[in-house]
Amino acid sequence: MNIVVVGSVAYDSVETPHGSRDDQLGGSATFFSIAASKLGATSGVVAVVGEDFRDSDRAILSDHGVDLNGLSVVPDGKTFRWGGRYHEDMNDRDTLFTHLNVFQDFAPDLPQAYEESSFVFLGNIHPGLQSNVLDQVESPRFVALDTMNLWIETTRDKLVEVLGRVDCLFLNDEEAKQLTGQHTVARAAQHIQKMGPETVIIKRGEHGAILFSQEDIFYAPAYPLEYVTDPTGAGDSFAGGFMGYLARTGDFTPANMRRAMIVGSLVASFCVEGFSVDRLSEVGDEEIKRRYGSFVDLTSFEPLSL
Amino acid sequence: MNIVVVGSVAYDSVETPHGSRDDQLGGSATFFSIAASKLGATSGVVAVVGEDFRDSDRAILSDHGVDLNGLSVVPDGKTFRWGGRYHEDMNDRDTLFTHLNVFQDFAPDLPQAYEESSFVFLGNIHPGLQSNVLDQVESPRFVALDTMNLWIETTRDKLVEVLGRVDCLFLNDEEAKQLTGQHTVARAAQHIQKMGPETVIIKRGEHGAILFSQEDIFYAPAYPLEYVTDPTGAGDSFAGGFMGYLARTGDFTPANMRRAMIVGSLVASFCVEGFSVDRLSEVGDEEIKRRYGSFVDLTSFEPLSL
Repeated sequence: MNIVVVGSVAYDSVETPHGSRDDQLGGSATFFSIAASKLGATSGVVAVVGEDFRDSDRAILSDHGVDLNGLSVVPDGKTFRWGGRYHEDMNDRDTLFTHLNVFQDFAPDLPQAYEESSFVFLGNIHPGLQSNVLDQVESPRFVALDTMNLWIETTRDKLVEVLGRVDCLFLNDEEAKQLTGQHTVARAAQHIQKMGPETVIIKRGEHGAILFSQEDIFYAPAYPLEYVTDPTGAGDSFAGGFMGYLARTGDFTPANMRRAMIVGSLVASFCVEGFSVDRLSEVGDEEIKRRYGSFVDLTSFEPLSL
Repeated sequence: MNIVVVGSVAYDSVETPHGSRDDQLGGSATFFSIAASKLGATSGVVAVVGEDFRDSDRAILSDHGVDLNGLSVVPDGKTFRWGGRYHEDMNDRDTLFTHLNVFQDFAPDLPQAYEESSFVFLGNIHPGLQSNVLDQVESPRFVALDTMNLWIETTRDKLVEVLGRVDCLFLNDEEAKQLTGQHTVARAAQHIQKMGPETVIIKRGEHGAILFSQEDIFYAPAYPLEYVTDPTGAGDSFAGGFMGYLARTGDFTPANMRRAMIVGSLVASFCVEGFSVDRLSEVGDEEIKRRYGSFVDLTSFEPLSL
């Protein structure tokens, strides 16, 4: 197993201008691990579900080679549920409900086989739990963490503490500015790098993502899709594609980190083309290579002739 | 003269987290024409000011080779004034006041020397006035138009009419979706192309800009600056850099349109580094070439190795 991922395995109910779905498979660990599998990386999930978790959804994950030994099932428990409504332009969404259910008492406990993993993805959960997971991995080579405004506001100290132990942080523009008090992402990234993570990835949704990695700065656009079906899971798919590619190649040079950014962005572009993991599930190597080529077309330009 | 530009020449009062300035030189025609001059293109301004327009500001424009024969001065009139306050993160701003003053009765009248211009930039004013200017240019080679939500909402018919006569439209994500009723910019751009402009440029502020030009799609990021002093004029500087480069090279191939996008973005990045046109004014060829190289560094990546 290449990557330990802690996060949610959830049932989402989403409403979009193009349709609605109830109780579809979702959650950060789900999107991450399926995205990573597209690059040939195996994830071991650390999460919890209820007895209502469907065998068919378990099969979707295991068909992608995801290790489910760390997925506990709470007898008589109910799986975490999230409901959201996307606005016309798909950039904004309202959370309609969040039912933590079995996640309320989640205490991550890693199977022994996970302890020697080289890669760890700490999905967006309480920083205390993220620390707890990290304590259980012996000597990881690359640890990435995703977070959100809630933790910056409510448990900043614990977040800062765990940041000191990670190699890579994913967050959006606003969160980067909020965490550091800086006015530009360039300055915010420098401050975050001093807090621990050598690599800071600013997620910008349909505007792509920026990588700040030691001295390197790289801009990966999002692919300008004609139709977006369901944006849920785009960020975690990005992270899964990014880390899956790093785990697959084992190459942390700046040139390869840049490739990993494009891979993250292209995997996210597949994710949003379908509800849940519908589209992502069916994508194969050929489509990945073809869309990588589309990113080359989208961004390349020639020297200035003046 | 290469480019006729119609738009505002204004006095702006801006408040930013980094300081305030009253009655500084601004306006779409000002930013556009100075930006275009950086690429060696000469603009002829069609605009109106009051008797309070300072000689020193006239000198700034003419020092950049801007033709002011089309700049009328209304005796006893007051120059157009705009006041705005930028929020902490510089992405949002509140308009504090808009005093049209002499712009209220503006009826563009082109000096004869302007009538044979090859390039026309119709800055963000009433679509009826944009049409009126276009009527006065004999057979332009490339006409670009900038607009905003106000005109889409209040004078949609007139806007659609003038769009049928232009080659290039500048607008932001929201405006593109508003104008076409589409949910993604990719679909919106296709719809706009059917309305007339072969080239659609979606402006995204600190997230850069996307070009849709016939079959070509190109993403130009904004440069992730560490400090932004005053975002006013960024969009018009982008347009000025873009068209200035096209006017300078006379080359409308896809490869050159892409270069022009990067030039637009880099000129805009200089604009926002200072108040008014302070920073833009001082930029020379060497700095432009150097920042073009920074955009290459920011965006380039190698083929996938899987």
